[in-house]
Amino acid sequence: MIPKTMRALELAAYDGNLRVVEKPVPQPGPGQVLVKIAAAPVNPSDLKFIAGGYGLKKPLPVVPGLEGSGTVVATGSGLLAKFSAGKRVGCMASETGGGTWAEYLVTDARRCIPLRKDVTLEQGAMMVVNPWTAWALLDTARRAGHRAAVHTAAAGALGRMLLRLGRRENFPIIHIVRRTEQETLLREMGASLVLNSGAPDFDARLKESCEMHGATVAFDAVAGEMTGRVLAAMPQGSTAIVYGSLSDGAVTVRPGQFIYEGKYVEGFWLSKWVARKGLVGRAKMAFGLQKRLATDFQTEVRARVPLQGAVEAIRQYQHEMTGGKVLIMPGGA
Amino acid sequence: MIPKTMRALELAAYDGNLRVVEKPVPQPGPGQVLVKIAAAPVNPSDLKFIAGGYGLKKPLPVVPGLEGSGTVVATGSGLLAKFSAGKRVGCMASETGGGTWAEYLVTDARRCIPLRKDVTLEQGAMMVVNPWTAWALLDTARRAGHRAAVHTAAAGALGRMLLRLGRRENFPIIHIVRRTEQETLLREMGASLVLNSGAPDFDARLKESCEMHGATVAFDAVAGEMTGRVLAAMPQGSTAIVYGSLSDGAVTVRPGQFIYEGKYVEGFWLSKWVARKGLVGRAKMAFGLQKRLATDFQTEVRARVPLQGAVEAIRQYQHEMTGGKVLIMPGGA
Repeated sequence: MIPKTMRALELAAYDGNLRVVEKPVPQPGPGQVLVKIAAAPVNPSDLKFIAGGYGLKKPLPVVPGLEGSGTVVATGSGLLAKFSAGKRVGCMASETGGGTWAEYLVTDARRCIPLRKDVTLEQGAMMVVNPWTAWALLDTARRAGHRAAVHTAAAGALGRMLLRLGRRENFPIIHIVRRTEQETLLREMGASLVLNSGAPDFDARLKESCEMHGATVAFDAVAGEMTGRVLAAMPQGSTAIVYGSLSDGAVTVRPGQFIYEGKYVEGFWLSKWVARKGLVGRAKMAFGLQKRLATDFQTEVRARVPLQGAVEAIRQYQHEMTGGKVLIMPGGA
Repeated sequence: MIPKTMRALELAAYDGNLRVVEKPVPQPGPGQVLVKIAAAPVNPSDLKFIAGGYGLKKPLPVVPGLEGSGTVVATGSGLLAKFSAGKRVGCMASETGGGTWAEYLVTDARRCIPLRKDVTLEQGAMMVVNPWTAWALLDTARRAGHRAAVHTAAAGALGRMLLRLGRRENFPIIHIVRRTEQETLLREMGASLVLNSGAPDFDARLKESCEMHGATVAFDAVAGEMTGRVLAAMPQGSTAIVYGSLSDGAVTVRPGQFIYEGKYVEGFWLSKWVARKGLVGRAKMAFGLQKRLATDFQTEVRARVPLQGAVEAIRQYQHEMTGGKVLIMPGGA
């Protein structure tokens, strides 16, 4: 039985302040499904969204949450929607409707991925944003002919995926972290190229390492001064792909890096990358990556919280983002 | 008769401090020529060079001066060198030897362009750095499919060339200046799209203008905050081509411009662009652009100074760069 109302986290202004509200359960329209949410992670892009810094702004008030998982409990018209009925799915919020930080979500059926039997709802809740980004960054780099990379936020969930992927695919990645314990963590995971940006000889060692391994592309989730520091350490003609802005600062690069060194800065946004793939391309990715959710694309979880506890857990996560994901579980953990 | 010694401007350290010295007249080696310099301009790239911020550093002490004109008075071995004997030429300094701010220059014969009869030594002295850059920027933009552009240092010598070129080739250019008198100057030259970056509504008007004319590329000689302001005003997917750094500031762009707006920053350096062209390509350009030196590619001259007066004239030029070029004339004006 689907209730009339549900609890949800709601944003009244793009100021980052969330509150738990009681609101009507949304109704699926044509091509849409209603998902009873089991789990939904808090990603850095969610934090950008609630602070108004994301690439997409929805009319307020709005339920945030870019991805999650659950069971399809009702559907609108359309083949794909009907096909999803009753299925366990990983799901993305639609571009116009509410998000996953609620007991129920209405989204487009094509934004749901049926889960394999061996994938838990918890793993399935985190199967798109980080895994697809990690995969897409590496794929983009390879297609552009790069043979090694630098990653600037290497200790986070996505950084650990890139570490596993790089090892599996023999693609050297120089991992940049900010603290000694992150360095230790990555080395324990098997990384050999780890540099601490706080070390006094960081810039010189990064330059040396980039030259030695031919790293000509940087995946940059930090922005601010970091983009320019990394680019300055890389060989002529290198590219920085900015895909996040954890520092919240403007990308800052000395002009000579562009003029005389022939370097580039570009961006990466998963939504745009996915939109360029057709439905078949997306289905292939969804299937392929799902098989590796428990291995290459596994995500550490630090806390499982109900909607009530989410506001405080998100605050803690903002303060310290490398200790594993916060999973919101509207139905209880 | 070639004397044993000559006067030249010399740089003892990359600190911008020049002095007039007496030094031996250099000897042309194989493939080289000795040019008796008639005129040599002071370009922004020369100022970068003497301050140590250029893409090329030569062993010190060194004679600066990237381009100039004069007469070939002696040659080394080699067909091209011998062919140049006695000719009036426009010339570029070699990558390793001294520059044009001297009575005599030794450079590679392939860095000399014989002047047409109707081209004066004064015009011929300024036939490469600005004209080729203006032409190359427009050509690069067109080849990349752009249909209109923004230029950030529009009142300078290169800006005026771009203005004339854009009009002739029906390629709309939005000209950004910093002062009212520059705005007036460009309008008198026939520019219709001129914006003053000091105006309170500058950013909004630039955005409006970029949308209206479909300007998706910026030629940026300013760098610093300007790159980010211009890029933010342009449509999604736009590119900033940084080719100078008059502001001396780091290129500063909000990360969302890369991530969500799909914009790019790249650089342009004439030396690298020219190196990619073969000898034939360069000869064609040299011939084609030379015919238009008195029209599209004309350069205003503010002062003609002997070597003795050059140090002070360069200081004034650094202070105020839009009043026309300073021409150093080692043999007297």
